[in-house]
Amino acid sequence: MEHSTSAVNWQPRNIPKAPGEMLRNSLGHVARGADGVLFFQWRQSRAGAETYHSGMVPHAGRDSALFRDVVRLGDVLGRLGELRGSVVPRSRIAILWDQEAGWGTALPAQPTSLTYLDQARRLHAALVDAGVPVDVVPATDDLDGYDVVLVPTLYLAPEGTADRLAGVVARGGQVVVTYFSGIVDAANRVLLGGYPGEFRELLGVRGEEFAPLPEGGTVTLSDGSVGEVWTERFTAVDADVVSRFTSGPSEGGPAVTRRRSGGGSAWYVSTRLDAGSTAAFVATLLDEAGIEPVAAPAPGVELVRRVDGERSWVFAINHTDEDHTLAVAGHDLVADARHESGAVVPARGVVVVRED
Amino acid sequence: MEHSTSAVNWQPRNIPKAPGEMLRNSLGHVARGADGVLFFQWRQSRAGAETYHSGMVPHAGRDSALFRDVVRLGDVLGRLGELRGSVVPRSRIAILWDQEAGWGTALPAQPTSLTYLDQARRLHAALVDAGVPVDVVPATDDLDGYDVVLVPTLYLAPEGTADRLAGVVARGGQVVVTYFSGIVDAANRVLLGGYPGEFRELLGVRGEEFAPLPEGGTVTLSDGSVGEVWTERFTAVDADVVSRFTSGPSEGGPAVTRRRSGGGSAWYVSTRLDAGSTAAFVATLLDEAGIEPVAAPAPGVELVRRVDGERSWVFAINHTDEDHTLAVAGHDLVADARHESGAVVPARGVVVVRED
Amino acid sequence: MEHSTSAVNWQPRNIPKAPGEMLRNSLGHVARGADGVLFFQWRQSRAGAETYHSGMVPHAGRDSALFRDVVRLGDVLGRLGELRGSVVPRSRIAILWDQEAGWGTALPAQPTSLTYLDQARRLHAALVDAGVPVDVVPATDDLDGYDVVLVPTLYLAPEGTADRLAGVVARGGQVVVTYFSGIVDAANRVLLGGYPGEFRELLGVRGEEFAPLPEGGTVTLSDGSVGEVWTERFTAVDADVVSRFTSGPSEGGPAVTRRRSGGGSAWYVSTRLDAGSTAAFVATLLDEAGIEPVAAPAPGVELVRRVDGERSWVFAINHTDEDHTLAVAGHDLVADARHESGAVVPARGVVVVRED
Repeated sequence: MEHSTSAVNWQPRNIPKAPGEMLRNSLGHVARGADGVLFFQWRQSRAGAETYHSGMVPHAGRDSALFRDVVRLGDVLGRLGELRGSVVPRSRIAILWDQEAGWGTALPAQPTSLTYLDQARRLHAALVDAGVPVDVVPATDDLDGYDVVLVPTLYLAPEGTADRLAGVVARGGQVVVTYFSGIVDAANRVLLGGYPGEFRELLGVRGEEFAPLPEGGTVTLSDGSVGEVWTERFTAVDADVVSRFTSGPSEGGPAVTRRRSGGGSAWYVSTRLDAGSTAAFVATLLDEAGIEPVAAPAPGVELVRRVDGERSWVFAINHTDEDHTLAVAGHDLVADARHESGAVVPARGVVVVRED
Repeated sequence: MEHSTSAVNWQPRNIPKAPGEMLRNSLGHVARGADGVLFFQWRQSRAGAETYHSGMVPHAGRDSALFRDVVRLGDVLGRLGELRGSVVPRSRIAILWDQEAGWGTALPAQPTSLTYLDQARRLHAALVDAGVPVDVVPATDDLDGYDVVLVPTLYLAPEGTADRLAGVVARGGQVVVTYFSGIVDAANRVLLGGYPGEFRELLGVRGEEFAPLPEGGTVTLSDGSVGEVWTERFTAVDADVVSRFTSGPSEGGPAVTRRRSGGGSAWYVSTRLDAGSTAAFVATLLDEAGIEPVAAPAPGVELVRRVDGERSWVFAINHTDEDHTLAVAGHDLVADARHESGAVVPARGVVVVRED
Repeated sequence: MEHSTSAVNWQPRNIPKAPGEMLRNSLGHVARGADGVLFFQWRQSRAGAETYHSGMVPHAGRDSALFRDVVRLGDVLGRLGELRGSVVPRSRIAILWDQEAGWGTALPAQPTSLTYLDQARRLHAALVDAGVPVDVVPATDDLDGYDVVLVPTLYLAPEGTADRLAGVVARGGQVVVTYFSGIVDAANRVLLGGYPGEFRELLGVRGEEFAPLPEGGTVTLSDGSVGEVWTERFTAVDADVVSRFTSGPSEGGPAVTRRRSGGGSAWYVSTRLDAGSTAAFVATLLDEAGIEPVAAPAPGVELVRRVDGERSWVFAINHTDEDHTLAVAGHDLVADARHESGAVVPARGVVVVRED
């Protein structure tokens, strides 16, 4: 997929990339399996709608910091040539994605104004910060091999989703379903008898009424978590109550529940946990499933491994203003330098270490 | 008129009713003369535009808190059957209402962006808080029998309004006209010679220039009141100055005036008093007119009486988080319990006492 | 050009003029050469789209403060009759104006949302506060006779502009070009090789990338100035660096530069200096060019002189809440009073002194 060397041209205010940001973005793609880096556009247009969209050769020409950064990226990619054909191993954790569910949540006259992407992104960001790569998979996929499956706001669940998720639980896995999931059938008719119709049995809950929050509103949970956007009035029919709402329109009722079954668990999260609460929740899940990070993690540092059967490479992409130490011995292909005990990933920098 | 058991579906964020809110809303209607309670919709739609509008039987079915609340409402209404045919006695105080005036204030290129309803609602809310039921009457009505008549922002006054209001004053009543009233004739032509053309003689004032406030701006008055939205540069030609503007674009000029005549008074309020200042102003009016509340009032507690010639019932609807004591002896039809000296109206609760 | 005696009718909230404001506005026009004062409308419309636009005779009629102010203006204008035919001397300082450049900055998909007028107005306001009248001239004009030429955001420079500006510098003048100027040719094609293509040689700078700021963002400069809206990543190829960005997306790079040549200077200002920083910058320019104010200046007091070859008149228009002393001896035509040593210009007032 194309990206940009610096500013785009379609925002009200198009802010250019900071030094090093283009390299980090590019290697973020390579880390996840790309064997090339594609930009729109080669030469920045002299005229037309995309005149002020950045390119590899800017209006100023080749004598420019931006073009020198592009050349430097070429150098780095040259040294990364040995990764060609290597892959990111399949993760043990998946996030389900379904564009039809996204369209469904955006229909008129829904209970509240939701953005489908928000909850998926928040879960994804928490996993990135935890140093754990995650597979984003179509909701229709076979889920064999996944030990943790996250189901953000799947308003319309494709046929058989509940069965596939039940299979994960039966194998001892962790399944997490968040609010406003499994509400309707393929004709957008509500599944009656209590929300979420498609997942009521899987989760052991029965919802009676949606209780969205006012613009900017938050609620507190009994475990100290904070919820946003949405709450729900529901009962834990056949599930443990992990936390309750301690404020807001569903105060006193369950907020997060867990139904244990066959060694696994099906969790229901009936509110949008804020970033910190999501991080804590994700840490619990990873602990339950025994999933380890690529290396010791730090918020804002992406950690990904590529392998080819014989060798392996660890990408550490540091989006923070602090240096980060990656406790991996090997050869850093970005700086073309060897690290015996651990590589320092400079603030806003990247290392790609071929592991010994 | 239909209302809803809980959430509607046409707001950006549709927040459900809190426990007890549906009963309070329903009995608010009954208190004012309704002999029934009507909801849209019986069964919550399974599909269509109103899928997420609440109903009497929610998607979850009859085993739900909401349906149990509806059944409880039915029980209460059963006990209220004895009120059938009783009425709310005509009030001694009226608010004039005219939809054409509302449309007129919303025309393009008016002096400022006004919402016709705001001023009427603020006056009404102050009377509710004062425990005094008020009649909302068409501006074309005969005003016989009213001792206080409130005229919020009647941009276009129906023919004869000034004469009808003068009749109230002549009988010793209190008339209150607020800003931007009586400005135009039925063809939307300004009545020349000084604002408000239709009411200049009645009020004894002569306005020269409108001076609306910037978005969110306020002004202070010499009696400590606070004005919003609007001020006016006018002179008290034949009226007492009750308070003056002490800040803002009309600083130094009159703000509230009173023309005494024939034992009555015609007041002009040239700004939108804030809620606290409106409460104080309304208290003065009630005192002048000798109008007593239904019972000892409290802000947030609606008090209304229905009568049938032989019996009377007092509704006390508590929208606050504090218990309220209603000093009325009789039988409470909601709790089906007798109160010898006074009924406690629980926080967020309702009592309907058949008076001894 | 017509103006208004008080409120207009086309804003969401149309606030009337404060006492004295109409006289100040009117004499502001006369000060700059008007030989008359024109209002829309004579009688305030009784009906139609401009009903609530002010006029000379308001709805209230001639018995009104507003009409008395109009009559007073007539008295003052009568005494100013002797100015007829006098002129404002050509200034030594000019601001270039070009409507096509304004349209160009408003095209879709530009680097950021700019308002062409803002930068021109800020420079103009700084000169008014400095007591220095400025000519606003078409960008296509001959610039002979100007010792300081300000070029705010001239996105598309008319043919020959750079040469005309270079001529000013060659004569020992000061030229100031601000950000996003000289970017494209008449077909809206970017001038390649570094920004600003049209002015690169004149200014001795070479821009590589635009770096606009987020909504409401500011940056600091090494001389304590504050920049808004825009920054730029550029190098001073043949110019002195006057100040550098000390924060923001262009941190470390030059912010304001100066290329000295032939006794004159060409300045480049690559950000929108805030009001205080613009005042300081303008003070430096005036000092370099040896331009003196009409009289001792004060922020918020307009000072302009008209002359007819024999006589001269100084206008001092005080928009502040403090009295101002104008150190000019002569006869004040507004108050019809003689000032031997200096005239007090009352807060919110005006004097027009025929100089001895």
